[in-house]
Amino acid sequence: MFITFEGIDGSGKSTQARLLADHLRATGREVVLTREPGGSPGAEEIRALVLQGDPDRWSAETEILLFTAARRDHLERTIAPALAAGKIVICDRFADSTRMYQGLSRGDLRPVVDQLHDLMIGRDPDLTILIDMDPATGLSRALSRQTKDERFEAFGEDLQVQMRQGFLALAAEFPARFRVIDGGRDVAAVAADVAATVDDALQKAPA
Amino acid sequence: MFITFEGIDGSGKSTQARLLADHLRATGREVVLTREPGGSPGAEEIRALVLQGDPDRWSAETEILLFTAARRDHLERTIAPALAAGKIVICDRFADSTRMYQGLSRGDLRPVVDQLHDLMIGRDPDLTILIDMDPATGLSRALSRQTKDERFEAFGEDLQVQMRQGFLALAAEFPARFRVIDGGRDVAAVAADVAATVDDALQKAPA
Repeated sequence: MFITFEGIDGSGKSTQARLLADHLRATGREVVLTREPGGSPGAEEIRALVLQGDPDRWSAETEILLFTAARRDHLERTIAPALAAGKIVICDRFADSTRMYQGLSRGDLRPVVDQLHDLMIGRDPDLTILIDMDPATGLSRALSRQTKDERFEAFGEDLQVQMRQGFLALAAEFPARFRVIDGGRDVAAVAADVAATVDDALQKAPA
Repeated sequence: MFITFEGIDGSGKSTQARLLADHLRATGREVVLTREPGGSPGAEEIRALVLQGDPDRWSAETEILLFTAARRDHLERTIAPALAAGKIVICDRFADSTRMYQGLSRGDLRPVVDQLHDLMIGRDPDLTILIDMDPATGLSRALSRQTKDERFEAFGEDLQVQMRQGFLALAAEFPARFRVIDGGRDVAAVAADVAATVDDALQKAPA
């Protein structure tokens, strides 16, 4: 089973992805925990190329191509082999983040993002956990751990509000695989919800 | 006018591209001479990422995505601005090389290469000069200037024969923009042919 976590910066999705991996391992499952952009040696190199340096040095189109190249490598080298070996793959961000970040900053690009995904990736998660959160809370969390080298947290609250709406719209667009979980509670309560949601999906999945 | 040079390794196309630039400048034209992969600061960084290291570290699909990202940057930052300023752009290799190198090594990928080109590049040259040459001659020329860091010359003669056939097939597929020039003669004779071909095309082009 291929599970992705999505959500605005500071929503706690990385923590929740890790806690879900711990939970599943405790029940005897083999889990690969990975993240995007990055997740394989080649994809990490592409990630560094995109995220470092002047934010304007790549156009939105070039950035989408680089992220898709990284995702293709990540899929081939990390995700697909783990799934083929019967492991559960948990990925912190995947194609939905590209749909959001690139599609939102340049709305006309959403069709290009989708066509590129269909042409070069062609794999959607079985389950996507959206950790939904009030943007003001998310932003203050994100800023408290900002690093100088990466610029993805450098968004204002207005944009975070749009992102939240955008993720909720994606959840409505793909209801079969999305589950929206309220991330505005304490970590353990959110983790219990995530675990119950995934356990339920695993029980219903074909063996 | 956007002019590209194509041909197998060692065919002399880089030399001919430079001589054509000299010829056009001598007649008072403004010329930008560029090359692929690379041709803009961002594209050169992507070029380095693709061409250095273990040849097998990228799959054909990931490599095509990286080359398309580099081409998009090159088009936006170098080619399109020069054309918009009324300059002639001469480019040593362009999308036809991707059609050949990736399409030939994995024949089933040619439709993907074409769809990616239509989606993310969408610009074909006005004129493509194919410097055609006997592969045995081309290979001995290419090997004599091989560098350790780059691996594109590392093909045997059989593959060079297929490449030549492939380029000739592309010329037949796009007859409106391709001109095939015999590169097996001395440099000055080839250059004179190239200059006459381009002068003729410029005369016929809408002002």
